[in-house]
Amino acid sequence: MELWLEQLKERFTDKFSYRKDILEKYAKDAWLFSHNPDGVFFPESKEDVIELMRFAYSKGVYVTARGGGRGYVGGAVPVKGGVVISFERMNRIKEIHPVDSVAVVEPGVITGVLQEKVKEMGLFYPPDPASIMECTIGGNVATNAGGPRCLKYGVTRNYVLGLEVILADGSVARVGGRTIKNKTGFDLTGLFVGSEGMLGLVTEITLRLISKPPFRAALSAYFEKMDQAILCINHVLSSGIMPSALEIADRFTLNCAREFTKEEIPPFDAHLLLEVDGSEAAVNADIDFFAKLLRSFSPRNLSKALGEEQCEKLWQTRRLFSASLKASGLTKLNEDVTVPRSRLADLIGLGEHLQKEFNLTVACFGHAGDGNIHVNLMVDWTKVENRKKAEKALDLLFDSVLSWNGSITGEHGIGIAKLPWWGKALSRESRLVHEKIKRCLDPKGILNPGKFV
Amino acid sequence: MELWLEQLKERFTDKFSYRKDILEKYAKDAWLFSHNPDGVFFPESKEDVIELMRFAYSKGVYVTARGGGRGYVGGAVPVKGGVVISFERMNRIKEIHPVDSVAVVEPGVITGVLQEKVKEMGLFYPPDPASIMECTIGGNVATNAGGPRCLKYGVTRNYVLGLEVILADGSVARVGGRTIKNKTGFDLTGLFVGSEGMLGLVTEITLRLISKPPFRAALSAYFEKMDQAILCINHVLSSGIMPSALEIADRFTLNCAREFTKEEIPPFDAHLLLEVDGSEAAVNADIDFFAKLLRSFSPRNLSKALGEEQCEKLWQTRRLFSASLKASGLTKLNEDVTVPRSRLADLIGLGEHLQKEFNLTVACFGHAGDGNIHVNLMVDWTKVENRKKAEKALDLLFDSVLSWNGSITGEHGIGIAKLPWWGKALSRESRLVHEKIKRCLDPKGILNPGKFV
Repeated sequence: MELWLEQLKERFTDKFSYRKDILEKYAKDAWLFSHNPDGVFFPESKEDVIELMRFAYSKGVYVTARGGGRGYVGGAVPVKGGVVISFERMNRIKEIHPVDSVAVVEPGVITGVLQEKVKEMGLFYPPDPASIMECTIGGNVATNAGGPRCLKYGVTRNYVLGLEVILADGSVARVGGRTIKNKTGFDLTGLFVGSEGMLGLVTEITLRLISKPPFRAALSAYFEKMDQAILCINHVLSSGIMPSALEIADRFTLNCAREFTKEEIPPFDAHLLLEVDGSEAAVNADIDFFAKLLRSFSPRNLSKALGEEQCEKLWQTRRLFSASLKASGLTKLNEDVTVPRSRLADLIGLGEHLQKEFNLTVACFGHAGDGNIHVNLMVDWTKVENRKKAEKALDLLFDSVLSWNGSITGEHGIGIAKLPWWGKALSRESRLVHEKIKRCLDPKGILNPGKFV
Repeated sequence: MELWLEQLKERFTDKFSYRKDILEKYAKDAWLFSHNPDGVFFPESKEDVIELMRFAYSKGVYVTARGGGRGYVGGAVPVKGGVVISFERMNRIKEIHPVDSVAVVEPGVITGVLQEKVKEMGLFYPPDPASIMECTIGGNVATNAGGPRCLKYGVTRNYVLGLEVILADGSVARVGGRTIKNKTGFDLTGLFVGSEGMLGLVTEITLRLISKPPFRAALSAYFEKMDQAILCINHVLSSGIMPSALEIADRFTLNCAREFTKEEIPPFDAHLLLEVDGSEAAVNADIDFFAKLLRSFSPRNLSKALGEEQCEKLWQTRRLFSASLKASGLTKLNEDVTVPRSRLADLIGLGEHLQKEFNLTVACFGHAGDGNIHVNLMVDWTKVENRKKAEKALDLLFDSVLSWNGSITGEHGIGIAKLPWWGKALSRESRLVHEKIKRCLDPKGILNPGKFV
């Protein structure tokens, strides 16, 4: 046992653990790879975090922050050991202010819990990652989490007004504030959001809330051919009316969902889910407009959901897509690539090509309106030759996406899963700027080491 | 004449000038203070900018970037001399892609010109600063410009997908890209946006466009008492329907506007302007809803504008508020403070207090929905005692705003006008982070020197 571990245990008693089962529990996220930390820290206040960071800074101990552990790229995996900080005990909602329309929360608050709480007060926190009942606001901030509703409402960064950040040396920086607009200096708040725990540790988050739209409605439509669905998407997005969500799923995803949920899901090439929210009168008008628009693309089944309950029923199935794919027994490599909208058809076509070329199953679903499609390579991971095939397929996928001016990650981040393509995704100069910023804020490189900087 | 000036003139010929009248022309923005540069550079390509920066970096020459010169805080004033780079010749719209919904532009493009151009193609670029026909996209990026529509649509940063940035040493960093969602690394794009020319020079901007809402409608309402108007604002913003704009103006502003525009503007304490956009059916429903809501607060004159032409007529008057105040003959100190919405009444009350306490005229108008009110101190600047009074009044204004968890600037930035309050507005640690980032990207401190870092 190393001395520094003993020291931390003595100082923090039940807030610190190096029990083997605990180390293993905090060694991985929702991705494949795991690496045990040397210890796990459960702070209960910002003072705890400050003390830990002062200690870590002086001894050069690595520190990796962890939210709900629902990330898809190994971002919270402590690849070089050291201490994992789990914020699960810092889960207080400190304030919800209806007139100011802000919430002040600790990082360990479950996103879905906050959403329910503000909804009761007629307020709305839009970001809605699929793991909403398990992920935390702190994790959402670290990864700049998205979700279907981000098409209309924007991603996590658009809702973070201010942060309390503990820097690598244990000093406390308050950045941003409590107002919607703030031009006081550089956008440090935006810089910390999405920085994957590599620039500082967030201990308090001030979130912008908006007023809850009183009504919602949705359309579910199946198409015999994927091309029809994509053409339809482009027409929807050039209508001048912004849907609150516009989701697509392909045949394989639908098949798995049918198997898993036992619902009657027809066997077609593509499914679209479109939602609109606002006043009841406006929503009724707009959903009829979109129904008419969709009908002109000859969907095979078109159904309309009106109001919260009916809409949620449609979304329940959608939210289970990921679990449905996993239930196939294969390992799911979920690649959240994003392409300019004119390349959506190319991306789906590439999915089909990968399927044939590498004899892998590829399932595509996701946020079509954003061009952000989750391309899932379904691999029997027990066989080495399959892993190699998957690696080659991923190479081709990312190379193609980059050649189309797309991004290799739209929501999940780089973590370790996308690290092999980091050098390709950004120019040398851009990577250099990343390194400079990392070095000036974390000169000893102790925050989430072994990642992209 | 210094040697380096001669060298630049020889190298760049008609792209470089040190003629006295040119130096004076580029010595100030829309604020009071001016300081002549030593030379003015008019690049025509990114290569020109790279060459200039390599030269400036090697010789330690100061460089201050300039957009349309419409800033309110002296941000583009070369307070330490050196070279002003005016991007007015780099004003090409390189691409507008309807399916990808992006525009790629050079920094010197006039914001209003781009807006008109994309509108012809059924597209929409929402940010709308009042100086829209004179300001540039590059200037908007440097200051993260806002405007009335930002309530619903967000500020400039929300529309910048990617940037080409020339760094202090002349190297070129491409940051961000062409996709709506992008999680590849830190949010460098967001960091450069709003950095007031202190971290790099932007030579190309990729902007997100959206589809143009087919219809708009507006309400104009006068209230006898300001309190009624503010109460009304809170009810509008908790209705669950987001107006595309919600503007307020006080009695003095209205009086000046009446004088200046010769329009029939009734003499009340407060005016609200509310706009809604979307499909025609939805807009008609929502504008009626809001008309009913406003009526319950007993407005004195309530009028409705339907469609582009009628709405634009209302906005014409609104856009002239600033000019109307200036036409009063007094010097206008336009302070774009932002407060949490529960403090709106306090802020307006403070304006009245300043008026009495310091015997100054104070005009308030602006983006009520954002809590972003332009508090204009109207000062006879020819008299020294008035300047001193104004300084004291500003001190009280900013101290109060900060004590309410507000921001000293919501749109205009720090520049030199807000520099005296920079130290109060941010904690020491936050300022330290600013300085570290500045130093790592501009180690010689040659980019827009003499400002907040």
